[in-house]
Amino acid sequence: MSDSPLPCVDDLLAAAARIAPYASVTPVLGSHVLDGLAGACLAFKAEHLQRGGAFKFRGACNAVWALDAAQAARGVVTHSSGNHGAALALAARTRDIACHVVVPEGAVAAKLANIVRHGATMWRCAAGIAAREAMCAQVQAETGATLVHPYADRQVIAGQGTAALELLHSHGPFDVMVVPVGGGGLAAGTQLALQAVAAQTRLVLAEPEGAADTARSLAAGQRRIDFSPDTICDGLRGTLGEPNFALLHPAASVITVTDADTVAAMRLIWQVLKQVVEPSSAIALAAVLSAPARFAGQRVGVVLSGGNVDLDALPWAGA
Amino acid sequence: MSDSPLPCVDDLLAAAARIAPYASVTPVLGSHVLDGLAGACLAFKAEHLQRGGAFKFRGACNAVWALDAAQAARGVVTHSSGNHGAALALAARTRDIACHVVVPEGAVAAKLANIVRHGATMWRCAAGIAAREAMCAQVQAETGATLVHPYADRQVIAGQGTAALELLHSHGPFDVMVVPVGGGGLAAGTQLALQAVAAQTRLVLAEPEGAADTARSLAAGQRRIDFSPDTICDGLRGTLGEPNFALLHPAASVITVTDADTVAAMRLIWQVLKQVVEPSSAIALAAVLSAPARFAGQRVGVVLSGGNVDLDALPWAGA
Repeated sequence: MSDSPLPCVDDLLAAAARIAPYASVTPVLGSHVLDGLAGACLAFKAEHLQRGGAFKFRGACNAVWALDAAQAARGVVTHSSGNHGAALALAARTRDIACHVVVPEGAVAAKLANIVRHGATMWRCAAGIAAREAMCAQVQAETGATLVHPYADRQVIAGQGTAALELLHSHGPFDVMVVPVGGGGLAAGTQLALQAVAAQTRLVLAEPEGAADTARSLAAGQRRIDFSPDTICDGLRGTLGEPNFALLHPAASVITVTDADTVAAMRLIWQVLKQVVEPSSAIALAAVLSAPARFAGQRVGVVLSGGNVDLDALPWAGA
Repeated sequence: MSDSPLPCVDDLLAAAARIAPYASVTPVLGSHVLDGLAGACLAFKAEHLQRGGAFKFRGACNAVWALDAAQAARGVVTHSSGNHGAALALAARTRDIACHVVVPEGAVAAKLANIVRHGATMWRCAAGIAAREAMCAQVQAETGATLVHPYADRQVIAGQGTAALELLHSHGPFDVMVVPVGGGGLAAGTQLALQAVAAQTRLVLAEPEGAADTARSLAAGQRRIDFSPDTICDGLRGTLGEPNFALLHPAASVITVTDADTVAAMRLIWQVLKQVVEPSSAIALAAVLSAPARFAGQRVGVVLSGGNVDLDALPWAGA
């Protein structure tokens, strides 16, 4: 893991400047139909339209361009169930450096295809965080590449926060922001953005019931990461990182969501917003719809985090 | 059918002003991946994000607001396989007048649901243009409602042309514009927009092989509309209208597209642009990809016409 002191607001603002030449300023979408269903005013930051199809490009790009020349020459390595791997491959390509991605069994085919398409070297390993980290250490030892951790990394967190920063600038102020939480890169970055420009805005995290380590950790006041994820949200199966927890506790609260509610919200987003988002994105709307009292009449910023879906295996097919 | 002299450029400009309070200015999307595949620079006008999920709202809204008060009081009626019906229902609601929609058997469920949701009275009839027109005449006789034909109507054509007008203003100039053709409302309206502000831009129409009456009509120099449509593009099964033909001949050319190419293009738009579009929209990209020599190195404006898809019956499911 690269050095991980906590990122601060200056890191966030530096990230925004650093990635500006490479990342897209994604559009913000809304719908009277969804507002009506939620009883709130929702603004969706369309990060599934970010380069690589997910917000992950922001953090990866920031990490790649924060390297000094000597580090950059040895390349970067990461482990990822998909979106971060593809994002790092794409980011490495913007600086023309080598990228190695360790991919666990069970990753979504569409995401693997993106990693290869963007020119990275792919290394397969068994599922589970231990196998991923072991394979990653091996690649590091062999190549001298810098590890860019998917979420427990200062530059990655700072980069992810730029999505919320843009949303706040273009469509704020908000009463509350809702983002998905897995490892906590987007969540911690969003908290940083609120610290920077919207201290009065609450942060609500949407987490799968089958991977609710963040809910348990925030409730206990310390990381509780011993669990086996069981959720359709393949991007949210990681365990909450240390710097991520430190940034989120005690400011953020969590709504846990069933996979059934996530799939229903995903279908709604496809049907009404006409946007192809993955379950790990749709969970944020599912959280809002599952706890209407917490959002009634409020201005709600929602980050649609990614859209890399296997179109041959939609969760409602055959249902 | 309402009076149908040919619409002129003044009608187009009047339509743009008339619908401005009600219609969305839809975003324009692009993708380096699709540009690479096409060997051209593509700008996609996202009319699937228009109110009602299709460009049809533009023409319907223009027709509804062009009525005088006495006509409006008696309501409007139309026949439609779906998108125009939903659009007219929505448009009628903006003026708080009655709307009757005659719907043939075989229409897409998602489109019917929209018609009902927007408050129209639905009348079912057998498939085929004759049955639709007969039922429509009956409703007209009973209610005094004004027929707003889905495409062979001066105000409808003028309204549909505003999509291209916006695209030309925001992202023009283009070497060529590509739009789907069924009855020819969007096609004729787009031709009108080119006459108005982009006389040097070519118009290419994308038409299903299984409903290629426009290709035959333009080749013959007269309407050739005796055919039984056989295509997945449910929005393009109508027959080319008279005023539509008059506006399109001889300026426009047609590329006919197989359903297989349309489905492949639809999948590409979902995967790469992350946009839920229906086959009748995707055919425009399919046309570009099937005839690369005609677009190589050019600036191409494409109208993504609608996104009302039955998510339970995707054309690649089980394939």
